[in-house]
Amino acid sequence: MNEIITLDYGSGGKKTASLIENMILPALDNEALDALLDGAVLPGAEKIVFSTDSFVISPIFFPGGDIGKLAVCGTVNDVAMAGGSARYLSLAFIIEEGFEIEKLKKIIDSIQNTANDAGVAVVTGDTKVVEKGKCDGIYINTSGIGVLRAPGLSPAAIKEGDKIIVSGTMGDHGTSILLSRYGYAGGEEVKSDCACLKRLAGGLYDLSGDLRVLRDPTRGGLATTLCEFVENTDLCICLDESRIPISKNVKSACEMLGLDPLYSANEGKLIAVVSPNAADRALSIIRSYPEGENAAIIGTVTKDHPGQTVLRTAFGGSRILTKLTGAQLPRIC
Amino acid sequence: MNEIITLDYGSGGKKTASLIENMILPALDNEALDALLDGAVLPGAEKIVFSTDSFVISPIFFPGGDIGKLAVCGTVNDVAMAGGSARYLSLAFIIEEGFEIEKLKKIIDSIQNTANDAGVAVVTGDTKVVEKGKCDGIYINTSGIGVLRAPGLSPAAIKEGDKIIVSGTMGDHGTSILLSRYGYAGGEEVKSDCACLKRLAGGLYDLSGDLRVLRDPTRGGLATTLCEFVENTDLCICLDESRIPISKNVKSACEMLGLDPLYSANEGKLIAVVSPNAADRALSIIRSYPEGENAAIIGTVTKDHPGQTVLRTAFGGSRILTKLTGAQLPRIC
Repeated sequence: MNEIITLDYGSGGKKTASLIENMILPALDNEALDALLDGAVLPGAEKIVFSTDSFVISPIFFPGGDIGKLAVCGTVNDVAMAGGSARYLSLAFIIEEGFEIEKLKKIIDSIQNTANDAGVAVVTGDTKVVEKGKCDGIYINTSGIGVLRAPGLSPAAIKEGDKIIVSGTMGDHGTSILLSRYGYAGGEEVKSDCACLKRLAGGLYDLSGDLRVLRDPTRGGLATTLCEFVENTDLCICLDESRIPISKNVKSACEMLGLDPLYSANEGKLIAVVSPNAADRALSIIRSYPEGENAAIIGTVTKDHPGQTVLRTAFGGSRILTKLTGAQLPRIC
Repeated sequence: MNEIITLDYGSGGKKTASLIENMILPALDNEALDALLDGAVLPGAEKIVFSTDSFVISPIFFPGGDIGKLAVCGTVNDVAMAGGSARYLSLAFIIEEGFEIEKLKKIIDSIQNTANDAGVAVVTGDTKVVEKGKCDGIYINTSGIGVLRAPGLSPAAIKEGDKIIVSGTMGDHGTSILLSRYGYAGGEEVKSDCACLKRLAGGLYDLSGDLRVLRDPTRGGLATTLCEFVENTDLCICLDESRIPISKNVKSACEMLGLDPLYSANEGKLIAVVSPNAADRALSIIRSYPEGENAAIIGTVTKDHPGQTVLRTAFGGSRILTKLTGAQLPRIC
């Protein structure tokens, strides 16, 4: 481990994992945290899902959303991926001295609209202001509480033969942020997919045991998330590149920018691993929601290459996917 | 309202209140948030208290604690002030590129030790890294969940004749931070009171209805908190200056620096408003804990000057206390 924190540590890839595994988990050891889900499931009479996320995205307004919408969706989605139906949010602002009140108003309005749509209430909050140059406009933390509706979702539940489903096109958010950050012409043509997945995930909970795990592939993208599912197991994920939905605009932007859409962040998409028998049903459930209309079955869990995620390319070759190393793009969420 | 955010908006005083009341509450309107307690009490079978706080203190290591200890105590205390016994914390880091891993380790150790002492588990977390110059070393957000043990604590429960108790000396934290930030000689003689109030508050819950409200006077200090209790009511808080415990070192440091210890932040002290009959019992409960050994009854609720907080000075005069205007000292928590 280096002696200083570099941007790689925030990438959601290998460095982030090493920080969590080598420093944070050993120190704060407990069962709920060790599960390393997007949210913690708390013991008790009524099981509760608890999750937190800070948002440091730049720019704060982008095609398809803003930091306020993202802060609500991000945490509601983390609760949903852990099997919970989010009901309450906390909201904490760190604001840079000199930030325009008008922008803050827009962000709060966006938070309210998104929370209303998602059926969550912001019930507690905090505001801190730091001197000019000690923040970049505004950072937001939200934590979310929900009731556990789908117990037992976990990568550990994945079995040979299971199917990998994505709820829509991959890489929209990360690509859009990069285009808008650097002011590329045509940036408006690629919109962030920032959206709340609470209803869509809720639909999938009806699959009960046939639903193995849910995850929203944010930092690190689809590839990093799938690698995490099977690393250190005897399972392999085999993907069919031609089936992975990627929009034409994202594809050409990524080619131009030298990005890989499989590593580009999503903020309104989920990956579901489901039993082979339930795959078609899962797909039709997802497609019944507008936010899931482009869903596709993109791969299968095998034992061909234990611990690895393999992409069968459109030309018949194959490529081993690894977790993101370094920061493909900092501050995309 | 100005058109930009100034440091005053983070002071915990009038500007902070105006931001919350004029912008945040109208937008995010709901019953739990409107109560404006340190934590929200959520409806449900088992009532839950939920609170959040971001910590942007400078310096991050100070006499009596560090940002990690503060981040645990601050949220555990907010839950306690809302009548809850904290059990679970979330932990979210925003770290500046270049931050020393060794410092991060010390902070995580401190979080662990404080959480162990407080009987809370960190169950979910998040780490973001931002570019050099976009943060000041490290900012931490914690959110806390606890079980409601003392329902109905609220400034609205305060009645004429009630007694005001503080659990110890006032102004230690804010004074210590200022001394250590600017490198004053003798800074080590004034230690922050940073401490967890979960047990002490838990002891007071036994008073049930005789305990009207609890509050930890952080930003804005004792004076601002008391002003908030009675503003827009027909009640008055009359304080006896000679009874307010202030340590000799804090008193002389404040004189030297031109600070008022009544407006200086505390991070390990509480204010309890209790019924007159229960005041002595409350005092002995508080004093039975090491963190409450300097507790004192400092005033009475009257109807003499409706809506005001009046300090009877040691010389027999009297002075009306108002809420903090502007930032006496930014980034003390």
